[in-house]
Amino acid sequence: MEKPKLNVLKIGGKLINDANKLSGFLQAASQSTEDYIIIHGGGRKATELSALLGIETKIIEGRRITDAETLEVAVMVYAGLINKKIVAQLQALNVDAIGLSGADGNIVKAHKRVVKEIDYGLVGDIESINAERLNGLLSLGLHPVFCAISHDQKGQLLNTNADTIATQIAIAMTPHYEVSLKYCFEYSGVLYDLSEPDMTMSQISMREFNEMKESGVIDAGMIPKLSNGFEALEGHVGKVVICGIDNLWSESKATQLTI
Amino acid sequence: MEKPKLNVLKIGGKLINDANKLSGFLQAASQSTEDYIIIHGGGRKATELSALLGIETKIIEGRRITDAETLEVAVMVYAGLINKKIVAQLQALNVDAIGLSGADGNIVKAHKRVVKEIDYGLVGDIESINAERLNGLLSLGLHPVFCAISHDQKGQLLNTNADTIATQIAIAMTPHYEVSLKYCFEYSGVLYDLSEPDMTMSQISMREFNEMKESGVIDAGMIPKLSNGFEALEGHVGKVVICGIDNLWSESKATQLTI
Repeated sequence: MEKPKLNVLKIGGKLINDANKLSGFLQAASQSTEDYIIIHGGGRKATELSALLGIETKIIEGRRITDAETLEVAVMVYAGLINKKIVAQLQALNVDAIGLSGADGNIVKAHKRVVKEIDYGLVGDIESINAERLNGLLSLGLHPVFCAISHDQKGQLLNTNADTIATQIAIAMTPHYEVSLKYCFEYSGVLYDLSEPDMTMSQISMREFNEMKESGVIDAGMIPKLSNGFEALEGHVGKVVICGIDNLWSESKATQLTI
Repeated sequence: MEKPKLNVLKIGGKLINDANKLSGFLQAASQSTEDYIIIHGGGRKATELSALLGIETKIIEGRRITDAETLEVAVMVYAGLINKKIVAQLQALNVDAIGLSGADGNIVKAHKRVVKEIDYGLVGDIESINAERLNGLLSLGLHPVFCAISHDQKGQLLNTNADTIATQIAIAMTPHYEVSLKYCFEYSGVLYDLSEPDMTMSQISMREFNEMKESGVIDAGMIPKLSNGFEALEGHVGKVVICGIDNLWSESKATQLTI
């Protein structure tokens, strides 16, 4: 029997910062006739709120540390403000959305990142995704919307990378669905050159990705996203695409990853 | 066929302010072998955060007004921080909780309160509860945890009284369940005298309530709670109780409302 299709849509922080772009993305998502799950990043609101509250951004050896105060702000902004605004907007588009953190329904189980050289603080590394629970919500006709907060099943919420949550959810759903994973960001696809935003790569193979990393021609910020994407492909996700809002479904100019 | 039992548990702001009491309530709730839904109030954290952010509390003719900034704080604190902390704590107690605002799953539909003498701002009056959706979540084995935020189905989140949400949810679930509604607060029941916290009324009839209102012997803060409770009884909720944490299930010293 053919598996039903499921789209896992990750939307990045820079799109969330811009109310028009966020609204454009939600409009585009709502056009889909296939099932979809949305995972959203944070945007700059958490940083702004921290600054207003006088919470210093702690950086050790170039890495951002999540202390208890910073986590509270992240939970308020990601799981509260951004998540519920997205859900309310989707409901206005007649999409029956349900906003979730990883603690809700015990869907994103994680542990505090093990301390090696650096103690990242309250940052979660994902242990497992509760695909059965997620499937149950989809079977009710709901559209799950995740923020990038997980939990450790011992009562602790944890800050977690949104690209990684999207990737792990996409992989976990492959037994039940033919999954497409789309990282939706501020460009139409991966660029050759940041000064030419219309020139996108149509595809990137894992070999090409490794070569680009070695030669250093790739923007450092893209490396974790692409690494996540190739992990998804290796985890049997059928299709991994990096795209913008305008080409969320048409995929012209989008970048497809290939093994 | 006998209907299954459902407990709608409202927990007030003063219990939420105290981490030990909140934890005690969640422990007590988790002991139940019957289905339950939790609705939580706000506590003082939203007021504290508003003060830190320099957002003035607007009061017109003695009534608190929810402007856009105040609503953002409410959504961050109620739907974000408090709701997700409760969910994570319940998960640690092996309760499969799911945190919700009224926008999630379109469960609490409201409209902005109609302006008569006072414009209360972004305050929602409930239009209807989506009992079918709530039933679907319960049938998956989930324990819904609601904060006191509703939405208008046009993209606007709205601040809504938690006692009222609990009451309307309890009424809406009566076709499917034998519903008990419990308002859990800082005393064991309704007191004759605030200076005697151990002396609780065992029951209050609607006639007695009306007499107490007229004679003014009742604390003004209790009137809306009791009014909500009698509305629930009139709406076929089987049992309405005002209790504390220690007598959530035993109900000794609790106050039961009777028509």
